[in-house]
Amino acid sequence: MNEFALIKRYFERPDGAAYTTSGDSGVVLGIGDDCAIISPDSDEETVITTDTLVAGVHFPERADPQLIAQRALRINLSDIAAMGAQPRWFLLALTLPELDEAWLEAFSLGLREVADHYHCVLMGGDTTRGPLTITITMLGTVPRGKALVRRGAQVGDAVYITGCLGDAAAGLRILQGGFVNDELTAADAEYLLSRYWQPAPRISEGLMLRDFASAAIDISDGLLADLGHISAASGVAAELATNLIPVSDELTKAVDEQELMATALTAGDDYELCFTVPLNKVASLESQIDAGILIAKRLGDIVSGSGVMCRNSKGQICEFADAGYQHF
Amino acid sequence: MNEFALIKRYFERPDGAAYTTSGDSGVVLGIGDDCAIISPDSDEETVITTDTLVAGVHFPERADPQLIAQRALRINLSDIAAMGAQPRWFLLALTLPELDEAWLEAFSLGLREVADHYHCVLMGGDTTRGPLTITITMLGTVPRGKALVRRGAQVGDAVYITGCLGDAAAGLRILQGGFVNDELTAADAEYLLSRYWQPAPRISEGLMLRDFASAAIDISDGLLADLGHISAASGVAAELATNLIPVSDELTKAVDEQELMATALTAGDDYELCFTVPLNKVASLESQIDAGILIAKRLGDIVSGSGVMCRNSKGQICEFADAGYQHF
Repeated sequence: MNEFALIKRYFERPDGAAYTTSGDSGVVLGIGDDCAIISPDSDEETVITTDTLVAGVHFPERADPQLIAQRALRINLSDIAAMGAQPRWFLLALTLPELDEAWLEAFSLGLREVADHYHCVLMGGDTTRGPLTITITMLGTVPRGKALVRRGAQVGDAVYITGCLGDAAAGLRILQGGFVNDELTAADAEYLLSRYWQPAPRISEGLMLRDFASAAIDISDGLLADLGHISAASGVAAELATNLIPVSDELTKAVDEQELMATALTAGDDYELCFTVPLNKVASLESQIDAGILIAKRLGDIVSGSGVMCRNSKGQICEFADAGYQHF
Repeated sequence: MNEFALIKRYFERPDGAAYTTSGDSGVVLGIGDDCAIISPDSDEETVITTDTLVAGVHFPERADPQLIAQRALRINLSDIAAMGAQPRWFLLALTLPELDEAWLEAFSLGLREVADHYHCVLMGGDTTRGPLTITITMLGTVPRGKALVRRGAQVGDAVYITGCLGDAAAGLRILQGGFVNDELTAADAEYLLSRYWQPAPRISEGLMLRDFASAAIDISDGLLADLGHISAASGVAAELATNLIPVSDELTKAVDEQELMATALTAGDDYELCFTVPLNKVASLESQIDAGILIAKRLGDIVSGSGVMCRNSKGQICEFADAGYQHF
């Protein structure tokens, strides 16, 4: 099978939608030319991100291709969420060791499910032979000047996080067989695994936060490392109260008490949004949280200085190995 | 070294240009956030393409990293050229087996040279560990409705090609050591190698062709295969005269007479532009060619039917294995 037949079979929509999509998708020309053509509205900026997942490094070689596709797309969507943008279009560069039709069937199904759920369109890509590697490039749009960036945090801002932290790391440990814990039920394990394989990109939260946040980032390398990026980009420091860090019941059951905080603060892959909010907007944001419109929790504050400091419930400073993921 | 230090060291400009570029680059936010932000002009559409090069598949594992980077970028630029668009921005997803600083130094130098030459800006990317793989996503802009696409060829149009064909395939054979030919001088071999490693994306030609061409494609899989894509997308056939196929003196020296046409017609990697021109614009295009403003040659015509047919100087139909590159 050549590249063209493969793309036609697995990645074009049965209704040809990816080929010539309707006007409101913003796709002028989809799969099947030298380039795709998109046409963002003139009052919008385009945000763009790319992420690569390598078999044996970012996921187990023999993992379910449907889950691999979904995770790859969700991770890219999370970067769009962290900008407060609407996901719109993506490209798939897929490197495959061999033509495995069952694998491709499951992979393309997983991709389509997540793409449809988040209303983004596959508009092009590249298929090559080689070690299994998935690179997705995702584009989104945001009204001019409204994107959430890392460098906007100010001294006095409150620090928030959506959802809870550490679950994905526990899921990965279960996946790798590194966990023996009698307290954990099958349902608990399933929850933690799904948090690793199917992180929820906080798209609607990101869109809402355009009205509240002064800075935002998604948690891929761990809260301390990622909040550290906000601090560094903004030229400020952050102070967190460890007793305010949100953790799930499942994670609490899964790991020892002394490991719990380190996991929640330094493990990556949760893809929650960490964001800062100016004090004059905190009351209004809290009313959204109280109304259940936004699931988020205040963890601490932006202060002058640099770096991220944690204090326990007694006010003592706690140290964690917070270097984030070391790629090399 | 973590990903952030690596990017800062090798891929940010000394003047910080990739971080916060001047307004006219269209980059609102460059390297260093969850996404880059670009702001195309409102009268423009955005074209986008992605191409992956895998070590051992698309280039020799131990090849010069400066050349690898340049070829990767030039191949993506060629897709932009084939749309008649202006290259603007790119993302680099780089997967490396190890942290080799000399390799990265040479790679980033090669990338910068080509990016500067074609006035495009590295605005973001991803760095991961794994088998050496380079995925570049390139974006360009084109006035609304002015992009060159594959599906516009009409019966009666003339078929043209820029430059000459087959050199890159001969260069690759030299590189792979599969060539013994006493006629070939060192300068000939150098020329053919440079056509493989440093294909010239036909950017200025593509921009000019917006006023002339009804369809265009770049030659990555061989003329017959790629012109076949124009034919299929346009619902027409193409007829070529083999004696009109432009070949270099170096290629003529490098391969046997009976191999020459097959190489020129079916070998890939030349990245010339094949395009079709309505008859009422042929005279005007030919005057550009006569004036030396455009280097291109008429090869044949678009006729009714499907596929691509070649005739030799006696008018006989010639058959070539024209399936293009089989990825699997």
